[in-house]
Amino acid sequence: MGLIVQKYGGSSVADAASVKRVARRIVDTKNEGHDVVVIVSAMGDTTDELINLAEQVSPSPAARELDMLLTAGERISMAVLAMAIHDLGVEARSYTGSQAGLITDSAHGRARIIDVTPGRIQSALADGAIPIVAGFQGVAQDTKDITTLGRGGSDTTAVALAAALGADVCEIYTDVDGVFSADPRIAPKARQVPRITYQEMMELAANGAKILHLRCVEYARRFDLPIHVRSSFSAKNGTFVVSDSSVSEGEAMEQPIIAGVAHDLGDAKVTVIGVPDKPGEAAAIFRALADAEVNIDMIVQNISTAATGRTDVTFTCPMSDGQKATAALEAVRQQIGFESLTNDDGIAKISLVGAGMRSNPGVSATFFEALAQAGVNVEMISTSEIRISVVTRAESVATAVQAVHTAFGLDADGEAVVYGGTGR
Amino acid sequence: MGLIVQKYGGSSVADAASVKRVARRIVDTKNEGHDVVVIVSAMGDTTDELINLAEQVSPSPAARELDMLLTAGERISMAVLAMAIHDLGVEARSYTGSQAGLITDSAHGRARIIDVTPGRIQSALADGAIPIVAGFQGVAQDTKDITTLGRGGSDTTAVALAAALGADVCEIYTDVDGVFSADPRIAPKARQVPRITYQEMMELAANGAKILHLRCVEYARRFDLPIHVRSSFSAKNGTFVVSDSSVSEGEAMEQPIIAGVAHDLGDAKVTVIGVPDKPGEAAAIFRALADAEVNIDMIVQNISTAATGRTDVTFTCPMSDGQKATAALEAVRQQIGFESLTNDDGIAKISLVGAGMRSNPGVSATFFEALAQAGVNVEMISTSEIRISVVTRAESVATAVQAVHTAFGLDADGEAVVYGGTGR
Repeated sequence: MGLIVQKYGGSSVADAASVKRVARRIVDTKNEGHDVVVIVSAMGDTTDELINLAEQVSPSPAARELDMLLTAGERISMAVLAMAIHDLGVEARSYTGSQAGLITDSAHGRARIIDVTPGRIQSALADGAIPIVAGFQGVAQDTKDITTLGRGGSDTTAVALAAALGADVCEIYTDVDGVFSADPRIAPKARQVPRITYQEMMELAANGAKILHLRCVEYARRFDLPIHVRSSFSAKNGTFVVSDSSVSEGEAMEQPIIAGVAHDLGDAKVTVIGVPDKPGEAAAIFRALADAEVNIDMIVQNISTAATGRTDVTFTCPMSDGQKATAALEAVRQQIGFESLTNDDGIAKISLVGAGMRSNPGVSATFFEALAQAGVNVEMISTSEIRISVVTRAESVATAVQAVHTAFGLDADGEAVVYGGTGR
Repeated sequence: MGLIVQKYGGSSVADAASVKRVARRIVDTKNEGHDVVVIVSAMGDTTDELINLAEQVSPSPAARELDMLLTAGERISMAVLAMAIHDLGVEARSYTGSQAGLITDSAHGRARIIDVTPGRIQSALADGAIPIVAGFQGVAQDTKDITTLGRGGSDTTAVALAAALGADVCEIYTDVDGVFSADPRIAPKARQVPRITYQEMMELAANGAKILHLRCVEYARRFDLPIHVRSSFSAKNGTFVVSDSSVSEGEAMEQPIIAGVAHDLGDAKVTVIGVPDKPGEAAAIFRALADAEVNIDMIVQNISTAATGRTDVTFTCPMSDGQKATAALEAVRQQIGFESLTNDDGIAKISLVGAGMRSNPGVSATFFEALAQAGVNVEMISTSEIRISVVTRAESVATAVQAVHTAFGLDADGEAVVYGGTGR
């Protein structure tokens, strides 16, 4: 019938029993008449254990060697998964990233895929076998050294290989039922979303939703490859991540304005206090941060008070970059002439995402009213075409997400879906 | 100065502390002015743990996938060893068997090396780096699948790579000080042998000595590559395994007649009772065993008694092949017409090995006298040009080895070396 690429995460293959259960699922798909290619992550905590071993040996492990070490994790999971499939009477063959043709640049630990040459995978399919491919890894085009793709690497491997093979769909198996309208751990009434656009999924991923990595969704969007996010622990249908244009006219009528509410507790807020209000000061600040490789998210500049001729510049960045950011700014303090710095780890970012926002002017008003009624104080605001984000105190995160979730009728037990044209 | 290949076994890199100690030793060799290439086995019990995982998933793991799985073991050890060397300020680069050019046939689990193309290793040496190569593994020439070399595989990798690179010596690091005149665990007076010929080492290895695998010594002999067996836990000088011709005239004068006493508790003795004494019966027996891939070692046939016209055929084979052997013989029982079978696991083989035996006719007499005086009963005998082996009861093994060791003056606290020409 078709060609299905399936990706199983570490929690889906955590032990021998899980591996056998996943093998059964793969063989069932094959027996339905599909060609199947499988991408697998390292089993359970294997990657963390390997990192721990590296740290026992070296305070700062050589990047090339850390990649060589970590790729042992998928090597183990793919081999045992292939064994388990064999035992169900179907031929399976495991392939490393290098063998599967995942060609990358040579940036160890965060390599980017620059080509996919899946000749051996195609041969295996032609032989009627199920290829099992190691996620997260590739081989550098110039040095021929083994690389890893960094965060979201296994999902990206799956999407890249699916695109190169012309697969009909890339199924991403995880330990939850799909994409939710909010994180069910802090918003108990969150409901599973049956369908979401690439753009919405990218905004959710970029703003704290953990289910899919931004990078893998970007890749899928570029090749217009449908992603199907579902649980390896149930038979439920999960969430399809698709293009806007793949939503038919009838479906578009019923598209919700809001896809979901994301939150992120991983950012810090840095404020540069008393910056002289003259041209070039902001540029000097962000040049210093860029040189230190600090990833900046939101930026706010206060209106300067005429009395002092000084202003405050506030930005958010990953909490892990906070120290780096303040160190980089201290180094240019004399040059810029600012007064002081604060670094605040106690923040949360709440983001409302929905493609329908574009044509629904009331969304912002409803959003801020909901936060105000819940007593949530807003410290920073930023927006994109299909997203509104605010920074609040970290302790307000559950209150804020629940209030917004309810206000847009996303709660599972209430009005389940907000249809287009309600004007909110 | 020269090019030294060093191989470290699993016990030498069992944990992070051992890895760092081995790294120091490698860097010291490099700092003495040598080029160094390192071959490393999997850390400690890693291989057993991986086999255990495979067995949890599959009762009989697919051979291709078991090789893929097991090669993760050396991948881990070589990467962390390279990291540890890096931390000592010397560049090290790890290479899989495939990357190092270990080309094999496609017999998974027991692949044979058919070519070595160490281009990347030579490039690394040219760059002044220390290449760290995974032992025990290669890549199949035809299928491009990952293979393992089976027993003795890491030592064989080291010798094969040393030969291909034209190394001056292959140092095999282990957890004992070198080759001993007998196993010190059962012969406490065993002494370390400073020098031994390839042929003697092959006879010892083939007859139960565990220190080097037969296959690696055969390989070294073919390329006339000196092997230096030594401990990674001490600075002692170890044992050189070299060709006869590399022993100078003066040294040859002092060569001991006997290199050592080996023992093997891993064999079973199978007796086929009441075989009709006519042409072709023995052939039928050994054809059946060969078809079942049973490895036969010693063979004895009794003289038939005129009264019955029947004889007994006894052979030894690895204990692990015992069941297979008796099953194969039962299948041809009617055809051959023998009366019954016995399978005896309670035996030991004791072997006396020495190149000097060739020109010393008294060796056999001394050997059997020593066994007789110690009350050891001999059940089977076989000989080669430089070896005499006997089968005894397993419980006699220590008594037998000690008696022979003493009789040939090998004991450490007595007459340390038996010189040529004594006529014993």
